[in-house]
Amino acid sequence: MGFYVALVHYPVLDKQGQSVATSITNLDIHDIARSSRTYGIEKFFVVNPIPGQQWFAHRVIEHWLEGFGAEYNWTRKEAMQITKVVGDLEEVADDILCDADLPIVFIATTARKMPQQISFELLRKKFGQEPAHYCIVFGTGWGLHPSLLMDIDYTLEPIVGVGDYNHLSVRAASAIILDRLFSPHFDPDRHSI
Amino acid sequence: MGFYVALVHYPVLDKQGQSVATSITNLDIHDIARSSRTYGIEKFFVVNPIPGQQWFAHRVIEHWLEGFGAEYNWTRKEAMQITKVVGDLEEVADDILCDADLPIVFIATTARKMPQQISFELLRKKFGQEPAHYCIVFGTGWGLHPSLLMDIDYTLEPIVGVGDYNHLSVRAASAIILDRLFSPHFDPDRHSI
Repeated sequence: MGFYVALVHYPVLDKQGQSVATSITNLDIHDIARSSRTYGIEKFFVVNPIPGQQWFAHRVIEHWLEGFGAEYNWTRKEAMQITKVVGDLEEVADDILCDADLPIVFIATTARKMPQQISFELLRKKFGQEPAHYCIVFGTGWGLHPSLLMDIDYTLEPIVGVGDYNHLSVRAASAIILDRLFSPHFDPDRHSI
Repeated sequence: MGFYVALVHYPVLDKQGQSVATSITNLDIHDIARSSRTYGIEKFFVVNPIPGQQWFAHRVIEHWLEGFGAEYNWTRKEAMQITKVVGDLEEVADDILCDADLPIVFIATTARKMPQQISFELLRKKFGQEPAHYCIVFGTGWGLHPSLLMDIDYTLEPIVGVGDYNHLSVRAASAIILDRLFSPHFDPDRHSI
C-alpha cells in the first residue's frame, strides 16, 4: 500500500475548453516534488507524452540528482529521488504495479463542484480502511480533460475559498490537498490545543 | 478588521544562516496573490527594499493589471489588484493603518519548532475573538531573520510532514497556512460526514 501523485500535462483543458498538451513548468516539478516528499508520497509522476518535454523534465531532475545541484541543495535531491517522468496514466499504473499487487485507485482533483465527488474526510477514512495504491491526479492548464476522468475511480471535492474567487495555482492546490489528506495535523486522535 | 499577507525578501537567512536580501520570484507573486485572493486576504505585500527589485515586481503586477495580461487572464488581474510592493514591515503597518485604527498583529511563520509558538487552532480562535488587523508574514530564502522576529507578536507553529523531511516551497507553505487559517472547510460548525 502506498500513496502516489501524478501531474498530468495531456489531455488537459485550455481556457476555451479544448484538449491540449501543456508545457512542463520547472517550478511545478520542484514544488510538487517537495510537497510530495514532505507528506510521505512514494512517487511523484510528471505525466507528459511529448518527447521534447520529457527530455526537459529529465534534465531538471538529473541536475538536482547528479549535477551541481545535488551538492548544492540536498533537500531538492531528496525530492527529485521520488520524481519520475512518464507518458500517460497507464505508465503510472504499470510503474506502481511493479511494486506490489494491490488494486490502484485513481483520484482526480478539480476546482469545480461536480456530482458524486468524494470529500476529504471520507477519502482519508478510505486510506485507513481499504488497502490499495492511491494515486492523486492533478491537471495543469485549466484542468483534467473529461475523457481522462472516465478512467478515474473518484473525483475529490474542490477546495473552496472564502468568496467566489477560487483560482489557486496547481502548486498551491496540490500542497493544500496533500496537507488535508496526509498531514498528521488532522489525525482525529491528535491532541488539540 | 482584516487579514493581510506579507512576503519578506529582507532580512532573511541564507543557507549558511547569514542575513541576505533575496530576489523576487515571478511565480511567488502569482501564486501567493492567487492564494491570498482565494482566502479573502485584503492585501498581499511583497516586501523588498531594493529599488531594482521593486521595479521588477511593479512590472509584473502592471502587466496583469493593465497590460496584455489583464485581458488575457482576469483571474490574475483580480489577484494582482490586492498585491502591493513595499520596502519593509513598517511600510506594511503604515499602509494597513491608513484603512482603520485597530491594532496590527504580526504573525511570523517558520519551518522550525520553537518555544512559545501559537497553534493554528488558537490563532483561528483569536481571529474570531480579538478584533485586529492580522498580518501573516512569510520569509523567502531559508526563513525570516531573527532580528525581524523581535518585532513580531506571534510565531505560528510549523507545518509538520509525515517523516522528518519538511522542505516546502514558500508557495506551497503559504497555501497550506492560508487554508488552515481561513478555509471554511475547518469551521467547527461545518457539517462533517
